[in-house]
Amino acid sequence: MKEYAIGVDIGGTTVKLGLFDRQGQVLEKWEIPTVKEDQGSHILPDIAAAVKDRMASRGLTKDEILGVGVGAPGPVDTEGTVYKAVNLGWDVFNIPQVLQAQLDLPVKAANDANVAAFGEMWQGGGKGHANIVAVTLGTGVGGGIIVNGSILTGATGAGGEIGHIHIEDNEPDPCGCQNHGCLEQYASATGVVRLARRRLAQDQEPSILRSRSELSAKAVWDAVKAEDRVAVQIAKQFGEYLGKGLAAVAAVVNPEVFVIGGGVSKAGEILFDYIRPAYEKYVFHGCRNARFALATLGNDAGIFGAAGLIINE
Amino acid sequence: MKEYAIGVDIGGTTVKLGLFDRQGQVLEKWEIPTVKEDQGSHILPDIAAAVKDRMASRGLTKDEILGVGVGAPGPVDTEGTVYKAVNLGWDVFNIPQVLQAQLDLPVKAANDANVAAFGEMWQGGGKGHANIVAVTLGTGVGGGIIVNGSILTGATGAGGEIGHIHIEDNEPDPCGCQNHGCLEQYASATGVVRLARRRLAQDQEPSILRSRSELSAKAVWDAVKAEDRVAVQIAKQFGEYLGKGLAAVAAVVNPEVFVIGGGVSKAGEILFDYIRPAYEKYVFHGCRNARFALATLGNDAGIFGAAGLIINE
Repeated sequence: MKEYAIGVDIGGTTVKLGLFDRQGQVLEKWEIPTVKEDQGSHILPDIAAAVKDRMASRGLTKDEILGVGVGAPGPVDTEGTVYKAVNLGWDVFNIPQVLQAQLDLPVKAANDANVAAFGEMWQGGGKGHANIVAVTLGTGVGGGIIVNGSILTGATGAGGEIGHIHIEDNEPDPCGCQNHGCLEQYASATGVVRLARRRLAQDQEPSILRSRSELSAKAVWDAVKAEDRVAVQIAKQFGEYLGKGLAAVAAVVNPEVFVIGGGVSKAGEILFDYIRPAYEKYVFHGCRNARFALATLGNDAGIFGAAGLIINE
Repeated sequence: MKEYAIGVDIGGTTVKLGLFDRQGQVLEKWEIPTVKEDQGSHILPDIAAAVKDRMASRGLTKDEILGVGVGAPGPVDTEGTVYKAVNLGWDVFNIPQVLQAQLDLPVKAANDANVAAFGEMWQGGGKGHANIVAVTLGTGVGGGIIVNGSILTGATGAGGEIGHIHIEDNEPDPCGCQNHGCLEQYASATGVVRLARRRLAQDQEPSILRSRSELSAKAVWDAVKAEDRVAVQIAKQFGEYLGKGLAAVAAVVNPEVFVIGGGVSKAGEILFDYIRPAYEKYVFHGCRNARFALATLGNDAGIFGAAGLIINE
């Protein structure tokens, strides 16, 4: 009886793994280091060894394992071919093909942000919905889109790259992608800090943010919760950008729910007080009823989604 | 042997019908008037009668017909339930359920713009691709999105409503949807005329457009082809808005090709000279290689796509 699936989330420093039952319960989680030497050629063999070890120590046979799902940081097409995961030193190759040869188990692979979105749909903030947009407000702004229960991969694996929607015509600084005025420049953790720095430089209005030795997104949201006037203005600007961007996303894919995760989302539901008014102002009326929810799986979204690829598809 | 499918495209004044073979060849096209009286309650019975008549006159039995596909002007969910097609006087009901009862044939239904997109993917400008965005530049700007060969319907049938992406913060006039600054206000046929009027009112620079008794999108593009300087400026503005909007769409669904149709597209491939530079300026680099193609099915895209729903899914 095939009762288990393994979810693997490959990050730049560690690979997270999880053993799941068919019902989506995680039975065990563990990590191995990501060895990036030799163009990342050790990563998949290390994963295969880690999976085999754990199967052996648990006395699990291949007949009991449905398969292994993998999330990788780079563009991955619907067949599981990765196109240059620069953080890992990887060129172009088919992940399932390579890993299957080493494990003799079914393997599926997809982009890590998309896999995390799938996890949030399956067992997280989007549970019960088949059409979701997962938004990760971290160092950058990532996205993962699920349409009718399947990952929207796109033609070249760039589906859901919503952090790079152009949202501001008057931006002097370049985004990491070299364009100017991307959503990521305002709605990421670093984006919130940029908005804060700009606002604080504008005038001398008193704010508890001025006494912080180092500004952070958390400091800004803590100040918003303390009803600091300047911080509230920054939050409004953040909400204006993100609400406008998500309104554009809604006009394209019309989701049931936006699931907001990543470091910035630790501020909690207060975010929605600032996103929602702008979203409603800009969105097509047919998409106005989309819900906003917080991601609930945190750093485990990747292993959940990876296992979910195996169990649900 | 089931060898034929019937495609039905319900419009505000006429219903177009087409008989197709499995290979996607249209064998016959005909039309009936759209009778909107009595809350549009005659429309589906009229369609059923038209289909039965044609089957009888051709000597076709039910065993030879794969089914009937329907495109309807309003939000239609994945089950074929229409939510208030105001142009037809329709409230909320399931189109396949009602039409199947009258025809005793399999029926599928979807939104007309989405069905037309499906037609362009199957037999038109997007043939050979499974991930396309069809853009209709008509009175408004419509859209239809195909992901992995299937229509992206969205949670409430508003998937692909790209005409209502917010694209301009400084727009005094309201869009038909009551928002301000929607893509449709600049890239539709009426939008091109608005841009032209505004440009002509700015100064007295000579232009052949000034001698036109009535401005139209066609007049503007004819003037562009004649290298009228003012018309070229208008075209650049049009391209800037549309390219920016499609770049946002690309960051969400990452299509292989944009298929451009509708009245404005009659100007031809010269449109791409104005859309493409703006698209490339704003788009995420992973989506830069999307192609632009003209729609080829014209007003028949709807019947093609409707038949395609039956033959391809």
